[in-house]
Amino acid sequence: MAPMIALFSDFGLEGPYTGQVKAVLLAAAPAVPVVDLFADAPAGKPKPSAYLLAAYGTWFPPGTVLLAVVDPGVGGARGAVIVEADSRWYVGPDNGLFELVTRRGSAVRTWDIVWRPQAISASFHGRDLFAPVAGQLARGVFPSEPPRSSGIGRYPDWPDDLPEIVYIDRYGNVITGLRAGLLPDGTRLAAKGRSFHRHRTFSDVPMGEAFWYENANGLAEIAVNSGRADTAFGFTIGSPIAILR
Amino acid sequence: MAPMIALFSDFGLEGPYTGQVKAVLLAAAPAVPVVDLFADAPAGKPKPSAYLLAAYGTWFPPGTVLLAVVDPGVGGARGAVIVEADSRWYVGPDNGLFELVTRRGSAVRTWDIVWRPQAISASFHGRDLFAPVAGQLARGVFPSEPPRSSGIGRYPDWPDDLPEIVYIDRYGNVITGLRAGLLPDGTRLAAKGRSFHRHRTFSDVPMGEAFWYENANGLAEIAVNSGRADTAFGFTIGSPIAILR
Amino acid sequence: MAPMIALFSDFGLEGPYTGQVKAVLLAAAPAVPVVDLFADAPAGKPKPSAYLLAAYGTWFPPGTVLLAVVDPGVGGARGAVIVEADSRWYVGPDNGLFELVTRRGSAVRTWDIVWRPQAISASFHGRDLFAPVAGQLARGVFPSEPPRSSGIGRYPDWPDDLPEIVYIDRYGNVITGLRAGLLPDGTRLAAKGRSFHRHRTFSDVPMGEAFWYENANGLAEIAVNSGRADTAFGFTIGSPIAILR
Repeated sequence: MAPMIALFSDFGLEGPYTGQVKAVLLAAAPAVPVVDLFADAPAGKPKPSAYLLAAYGTWFPPGTVLLAVVDPGVGGARGAVIVEADSRWYVGPDNGLFELVTRRGSAVRTWDIVWRPQAISASFHGRDLFAPVAGQLARGVFPSEPPRSSGIGRYPDWPDDLPEIVYIDRYGNVITGLRAGLLPDGTRLAAKGRSFHRHRTFSDVPMGEAFWYENANGLAEIAVNSGRADTAFGFTIGSPIAILR
Repeated sequence: MAPMIALFSDFGLEGPYTGQVKAVLLAAAPAVPVVDLFADAPAGKPKPSAYLLAAYGTWFPPGTVLLAVVDPGVGGARGAVIVEADSRWYVGPDNGLFELVTRRGSAVRTWDIVWRPQAISASFHGRDLFAPVAGQLARGVFPSEPPRSSGIGRYPDWPDDLPEIVYIDRYGNVITGLRAGLLPDGTRLAAKGRSFHRHRTFSDVPMGEAFWYENANGLAEIAVNSGRADTAFGFTIGSPIAILR
Repeated sequence: MAPMIALFSDFGLEGPYTGQVKAVLLAAAPAVPVVDLFADAPAGKPKPSAYLLAAYGTWFPPGTVLLAVVDPGVGGARGAVIVEADSRWYVGPDNGLFELVTRRGSAVRTWDIVWRPQAISASFHGRDLFAPVAGQLARGVFPSEPPRSSGIGRYPDWPDDLPEIVYIDRYGNVITGLRAGLLPDGTRLAAKGRSFHRHRTFSDVPMGEAFWYENANGLAEIAVNSGRADTAFGFTIGSPIAILR
């Protein structure tokens, strides 16, 4: 049995989507707790979401099932997949969302989800298709068919690290798709006509000063001590970042 | 024991209201899981909320207790009720919120809540009155007194389907109070000076195109593929919709 | 074992912070339920948050562990504390957040948190330091060392009641840091160039009328029946309130 199911989506929490997903999981795997990891991943944007998921998903203990749904093509031709990467299970649409998890994983297997429920809506596969599959995995029922022979992600043109803003948090800090551990000491980040020096954390810079730092999940994040980087500089999801060494 | 308690309210999740309701439910029915269905039902508006509740509440398994609180008259003269409709239990204010559940149900009974807690606030009956009653129902303790003899809803002037926007989701899709299954093929919906054709789902229309479709809980919903219908057309809760056949 | 863990923070629910805290609590105290009390306490502002926490924390049953993190100085020199006040446990930063809980409690003990995890981020002690400690308390493992000899809060210049807006709820009602029970009958509150009379609840005043009332957790709150006090009068966190008798 999985230690937990973590939800990663653009569904929001207050409306009907996440609640219905949880009701399905409760029926499918009543003994497995569910935690909300992201409910506000970039809406309808699998690419920045993929970098977020890779950074945050691996924080969870082995055996965790990550139900990940950012799915603008729902109801269309895109596939549905299970990915096992380094002992964690990922379930969701085959639209690039698992590209970085796959690329960075050292032991990765992928299965197409061929099961279909008796009734399936055209617009909410998170509830009707992915949640039942995630619940089954969480109960410890793993795929019995052989995995896809092509284990490689299919978005080879996506970079290993994305020099863009992939998330804006509620404090106005802006998270990039860059792993901070790969950026040498002294690296500055440049965006919106100015550059940002690296510091350890907020309390190491004066009030009102902008800087970048390695956030608690390893991504480079631009912030203003006691201020909002998003509104101060006009950052949005997708704003490009340059790396200055 | 109920399979779950589902919360339907305008309380929001981040502030103190839903959390306190859950703390009361935890004490009253510790073994029954709680899921958030809507925490952002139209604030203070029982009428549109009633159409949402009827569409989404019936999605839950029989035995579910729906704690439903959109209660602008809290602390005043409005009553408090338990409604049993087709094996689901609804608890909340007697202000029209259960009118459509009652009207559409095939086996409906209604009880006035006469119990009062020792201490009751003037402004938060969701926590002080409705949650303890919902918890008791969830534990399987059902009303022992006979139901109201008048089983009929008291808002006969409300239509069976509401041709208005009753909810705007986080993608900017706008949900009407119209059951899509009752609208003949070829029906167009008109609003804000233009009309919308029916399609199956997002991926069936070009990027940027507006359309309407049957959403995953059976309501007619207007959306823009990869866009926001709310801001594109100026929809708000209560915007009227015309049905063109 | 604690009856529950209640979360009080400025983390928000939709992003990654609260979810990761819950994942840690789940590992540390799997049998103890977690409820979200506030996830939108005044961001980065321990002072108004302290008055909110004192009013809402004491509503919870004895034994509850309140994990409270509003922590602008994270990663810097501020300490980390456990406070036991009237049989409830509070865990969080030593930055004034527990000043009012401490001052109002009749039996209060304070411990410095000296334990440190093997790995600790510079910016997310809620997850890395406070959550493991809260989980341990929730399991019933209490501090074995003697409490701090100085039991007194260190913010003596903060008033017993704060005549400011400390929270704005989703209806636009604005909550002050004033305990309503200490304000004599006939007290008016003045702010933003006008004054507000006291009423019992919304349904006791005409539609559109502004008033103040004792909210369900004992604080004085300014509201407009069927309207928004925040936008009607321009209230923000920190807006000063005058007491007219």
